[in-house]
Amino acid sequence: MIVIGHGAGGRLTHELVERHFLKPLQNPALSAMLDSGCVGDLAMTTDAFVVTPRFFPGGDLGRLAVAGTVNDLVAVGAIPIGLCAAFILEEGLALEELDRLVASMAATAREAGVEVVAGDTKVVPRGACDGAFITTSGVGRLDPGFRPEPARIQTGDAVLVTGTLADHGVAVMACREGLRLGGELRSDVAPLRVLVDALRDADLEVHAMRDPTRGGAAQCLFELAQGAQRRVVLREQAIPVAAPVRAACELLGLDPLYVANEGKLMVVLPEAQAEQAVALLRAQPLGAHAAIIGQVEDGTPGCELITALGGRRSLRMASGELLPRIC
Amino acid sequence: MIVIGHGAGGRLTHELVERHFLKPLQNPALSAMLDSGCVGDLAMTTDAFVVTPRFFPGGDLGRLAVAGTVNDLVAVGAIPIGLCAAFILEEGLALEELDRLVASMAATAREAGVEVVAGDTKVVPRGACDGAFITTSGVGRLDPGFRPEPARIQTGDAVLVTGTLADHGVAVMACREGLRLGGELRSDVAPLRVLVDALRDADLEVHAMRDPTRGGAAQCLFELAQGAQRRVVLREQAIPVAAPVRAACELLGLDPLYVANEGKLMVVLPEAQAEQAVALLRAQPLGAHAAIIGQVEDGTPGCELITALGGRRSLRMASGELLPRIC
Repeated sequence: MIVIGHGAGGRLTHELVERHFLKPLQNPALSAMLDSGCVGDLAMTTDAFVVTPRFFPGGDLGRLAVAGTVNDLVAVGAIPIGLCAAFILEEGLALEELDRLVASMAATAREAGVEVVAGDTKVVPRGACDGAFITTSGVGRLDPGFRPEPARIQTGDAVLVTGTLADHGVAVMACREGLRLGGELRSDVAPLRVLVDALRDADLEVHAMRDPTRGGAAQCLFELAQGAQRRVVLREQAIPVAAPVRAACELLGLDPLYVANEGKLMVVLPEAQAEQAVALLRAQPLGAHAAIIGQVEDGTPGCELITALGGRRSLRMASGELLPRIC
Repeated sequence: MIVIGHGAGGRLTHELVERHFLKPLQNPALSAMLDSGCVGDLAMTTDAFVVTPRFFPGGDLGRLAVAGTVNDLVAVGAIPIGLCAAFILEEGLALEELDRLVASMAATAREAGVEVVAGDTKVVPRGACDGAFITTSGVGRLDPGFRPEPARIQTGDAVLVTGTLADHGVAVMACREGLRLGGELRSDVAPLRVLVDALRDADLEVHAMRDPTRGGAAQCLFELAQGAQRRVVLREQAIPVAAPVRAACELLGLDPLYVANEGKLMVVLPEAQAEQAVALLRAQPLGAHAAIIGQVEDGTPGCELITALGGRRSLRMASGELLPRIC
């Protein structure tokens, strides 16, 4: 039976995908399990967005639907060509709300330099869906000279993150639950094309990229480690987490490494290029808090953390419910 | 406020799309309002499928999700490159049912000679969606020598349909409502690539194609007439409708011209090529009941019917509720 955890991006999602999708639909593009399916010189991706509430500090369902799909394209190095958007709307939704969501999609698409070139709308009776779901698909052109994928990761590579972790998940959860926590909690949802363009334009040899959405940074690094068949070792103290987010996580018993992001990329590249990459990222507002957080080592594929006290702790693949409907 | 009719494919859908999507998202590919958005040499399309029940005579949600998207690609003359599928699943859905749906998608994709190269799964809590929704997107390569679009329609062109009308809508409705009607009612849901390939391979000069889904043949012909800025005149007696479907429509007060199809194409081409096209279509099982049903005339854009008694009746754009959740 389908349980909430099947959609949480962790171990259960992984098992569901492996057993119930990859096997019956098997083909190389799908089985590569990248952020986009790559066919010839094209990258294709799709994501259904069911976030609740639909408006939250820092963003909304519309911005999320465009940014999430753009980020899946740029994470495989593709240059976006066009997006499609399919709306499932519940009878009774206010047209004013639809207008706000579509305006937000339009603005986010402009920000990412891409257009929504096809769409579809279905309406279901009251009670058959919760307000509005948007599924966005995207197509991009692959650049043969810039094809990051986990299999290219080398021992000794540096692991970067383009900014602070856990902003999106904590902001949506606090908004949903009406929690009044200290400091400003805002989703980081943003299209990251500009960051990837900066790395590509500098001819950096990016070995892998991934956007740490559901399941958070930990799940993302796990998947990179599996693809690389190597070990990712993080320095806990190097991981950027904004103070209010850290405080909220402590209060709520959440580990920021497992909380969803919607405006961040994990980047793996040669250690010798890491400082230059961080400088390029920091030159962009969306990458202002970029940091080197770890490195790739030989060993059993997996992910571990060097704690502030110098101990080593293995990370587990995300499991359980996490935060449902976070994206 | 969103009402059921906004998703029915008729006048209300048209107004919703014009005012609330085309305006804020404006760009040439979207505004062309073809079955797929065309960008450079690529066609892109997306459709959300929310049909209920998910299994019905002749098909299921999975087959519908693949066929619907393939048909939107081939209707603009594109050769499918790849599909993406995004699942929104309700907590509690049986995994056995998911497996049946995915197996059906895989089989239908094989039938259409295309693969599902990317996917996504979201799970929402019980009550937040009705069972399972699948959004399928597709990308195809446009053939510069075969680019049907309504603006190419000429006065005197013949209008063909590739088979009987209204099978899908009547079958789903009868199944949903538990109606025991005479004869076999089966959905026509099928990927129509083979039919379009037959026309292309014969170098026929196809001026326009469209698949008459929501809103039925009438809505589809209306859109062709608008795009052509001409009049489509149908001969009522030439329109193929299977006897049990005709009987069911009479009983239920439905006009088969307004009922959804999922395995048919309307084709407009020069009158001189019409007989050859019908012969080519009839040589395929999916086109066995292909027929010439009308022609294009000069005049106010619109659609009219020459009745069995020789009278002329203007068709109206579909409006109102029609059949919700038919696809």
